[in-house]
Amino acid sequence: MTVAVYLPVQDKTQFWVDMLQSHLPGWTIAAMDDVTDPEAVTYAVVWRPRTGDLAKFANLKAIVSIGAGIDHVLVDEKLPAGVPIIRTVGDDLTQRMREYVALHVLRHHRDMPRQLRAQAERDWHAIVVPVAPKRAVGVMGLGNLGAAAARSLADLGFATRGWSKSAKSIDGVETFAGPEQFDGFLSGCEILVNLLPMTDQTSGILNADLFGKLAPGACIINCARGGHLVDDDLIAALENGTIKQATLDVFHVEPLPADHAFWGHPAITVTPHVASQIDAGTGGRIIAGNLKTFEGTGSCADLADAVRGY
Amino acid sequence: MTVAVYLPVQDKTQFWVDMLQSHLPGWTIAAMDDVTDPEAVTYAVVWRPRTGDLAKFANLKAIVSIGAGIDHVLVDEKLPAGVPIIRTVGDDLTQRMREYVALHVLRHHRDMPRQLRAQAERDWHAIVVPVAPKRAVGVMGLGNLGAAAARSLADLGFATRGWSKSAKSIDGVETFAGPEQFDGFLSGCEILVNLLPMTDQTSGILNADLFGKLAPGACIINCARGGHLVDDDLIAALENGTIKQATLDVFHVEPLPADHAFWGHPAITVTPHVASQIDAGTGGRIIAGNLKTFEGTGSCADLADAVRGY
Ligand SMILES: NC(=O)c1ccc[n+]([C@@H]2O[C@H](COP(=O)([O-])OP(=O)(O)OC[C@H]3O[C@@H](n4cnc5c(N)ncnc54)[C@H](OP(=O)(O)O)[C@@H]3O)[C@@H](O)[C@H]2O)c1
Ligand SMILES: NC(=O)c1ccc[n+]([C@@H]2O[C@H](COP(=O)([O-])OP(=O)(O)OC[C@H]3O[C@@H](n4cnc5c(N)ncnc54)[C@H](OP(=O)(O)O)[C@@H]3O)[C@@H](O)[C@H]2O)c1
Repeated sequence: MTVAVYLPVQDKTQFWVDMLQSHLPGWTIAAMDDVTDPEAVTYAVVWRPRTGDLAKFANLKAIVSIGAGIDHVLVDEKLPAGVPIIRTVGDDLTQRMREYVALHVLRHHRDMPRQLRAQAERDWHAIVVPVAPKRAVGVMGLGNLGAAAARSLADLGFATRGWSKSAKSIDGVETFAGPEQFDGFLSGCEILVNLLPMTDQTSGILNADLFGKLAPGACIINCARGGHLVDDDLIAALENGTIKQATLDVFHVEPLPADHAFWGHPAITVTPHVASQIDAGTGGRIIAGNLKTFEGTGSCADLADAVRGY
Repeated sequence: MTVAVYLPVQDKTQFWVDMLQSHLPGWTIAAMDDVTDPEAVTYAVVWRPRTGDLAKFANLKAIVSIGAGIDHVLVDEKLPAGVPIIRTVGDDLTQRMREYVALHVLRHHRDMPRQLRAQAERDWHAIVVPVAPKRAVGVMGLGNLGAAAARSLADLGFATRGWSKSAKSIDGVETFAGPEQFDGFLSGCEILVNLLPMTDQTSGILNADLFGKLAPGACIINCARGGHLVDDDLIAALENGTIKQATLDVFHVEPLPADHAFWGHPAITVTPHVASQIDAGTGGRIIAGNLKTFEGTGSCADLADAVRGY
């Protein structure tokens, strides 16, 4: 088996080549640009490959996305059709996302931004908020990450609801499914967390129309993909008070350009795509395990569905 | 039954008089300073009474502390001995404290202060932290509030430990008890939450000696009483790096004086005694219920122990 590895940063590619090699001693692992015999390549491990990169390999058995999403693979217009795509997920990723979501929901719930402003003014100003069971929090997307995040929010006592494509049942979470239940899900929602995958249906879903359906002055947390958010709609909604605060981890262009309005906006918290970073050690172990399973059985648990788009 | 009510702020006293009256229609409720017949007073409901206030009532059956602590009652040197003290606790208080502790532990865990500084500098700087199961968090005090907070931290995935006077068993929490296990509890602890009551044994417990026993660069969260902390020791420990950050909700003098060094310290988050504010509506219902129970049975579940001090 030959595995071709590509990440946009050359150093990172080499790092992943070496790490995967250490986990897969009998295999041939190479940086994609060093491959001399494309016919021999049976697996590609990639983050944001270039257009046509994967089409070069006629004998690909599977493509591994370094990450939970596959949108950065699907953008390749020349992506070979029908090749299975393996997502990289796992307990570590889920744990980190639970932490991020709990932290930022609690920050908005207890209005830490305003509390910190009061401190800066040496103002002993108690901000009185409802107790979590009286706070409606919604999670969009109830997959690996969204379902775990929703469960953590329910454990913390929040009045938690969730929305997905197919109907789900999660202890302590009020669930909604499909476009017909979307407005019901949004109505009265005070803190909204986005954990949808990026697809044609979900692109730009965080827009003025959606903002207007939430509780007035709701807070938004986007930890899925930058393309889910219509940036200008958020700026306008913060301006007119429809939205009170937002925490954004993902952006149309990453790193977020230094001149982007989000950086300095008083009602926006920017984090640099760290909600749930897969650490390389854990990621390497997971990917090596998935490759072995796929090679042995022709399938694996974390297969994405290219037609569905996630 | 006559109930005498006192809070240091006159408006608040009247508010509580009216509210308790609405819950206890057959009873006589009066502001303490309006009482004309001290012999008739059988209950006192107080927050921070003045020295000698309670000694005036010869027929007191019980004293109600508006709050979970009783230290603000015990400071009265003329406090009539042997009169039971009823604490005001309940689900609402516990819920709010769980939220506060989870929020601030997560803030320190994910280093939000540094993340926000990076944002202010438009710096796309990923802060890599261990995953919660690799983060040792300790809770001092495993009473109503501490035990619930520790459970929430364990639910969130933290490597959680707790310390109390008598031995306790809490699912998912490593427990320590008494002075002889204190060093073991502190050793390696990276985030420390204080939820002890204020007593002779616990006064000034957050001091240089304790700081030195934690993991280097640990974070401190004090949401119990200002008297637990030696202010100058904290400033020095932040200076020399023994402690990295602190969140303080309680202070020796409240409101925290405008010229206090904590307000402007870059490594200290100040919140104005809001970790778990009892909201007046809920508090009124709980106190009225406790008074009725005590009047009917001569006891109630939330009795403090004046000799023990909490
Ligand atoms: N910021 C970060 O650090 C970070 C890290 C990892 C992942 N992510 C993002 O998080 C996303 C979610 O990850 P995951 O592993 O939880 O994904 P997943 O397991 O594929 O789950 C996706 C969820 O979204 C729902 N969904 C998809 N399309 C929908 C639609 N049109 N309407 C309603 N619901 C829809 C799915 O519904 P069904 O269950 O009915 O299919 C499913 O519940 C990833 O795609 C990625 O973009 C971000
Ligand atoms: N910031 C706020 O908004 C706020 C709000 C409410 C309360 N508080 C503070 O929180 C404190 C705790 O409240 P609570 O209702 O949880 O109190 P609690 O039920 O009385 O519990 C106190 C805990 O501390 C332990 N403890 C007492 N003395 C100790 C000692 N010398 N060594 C080791 N452990 C000791 C007790 O051990 P045992 O179980 O063995 O007795 C118990 O677990 C209150 O006293 C108050 O100061 C703050």
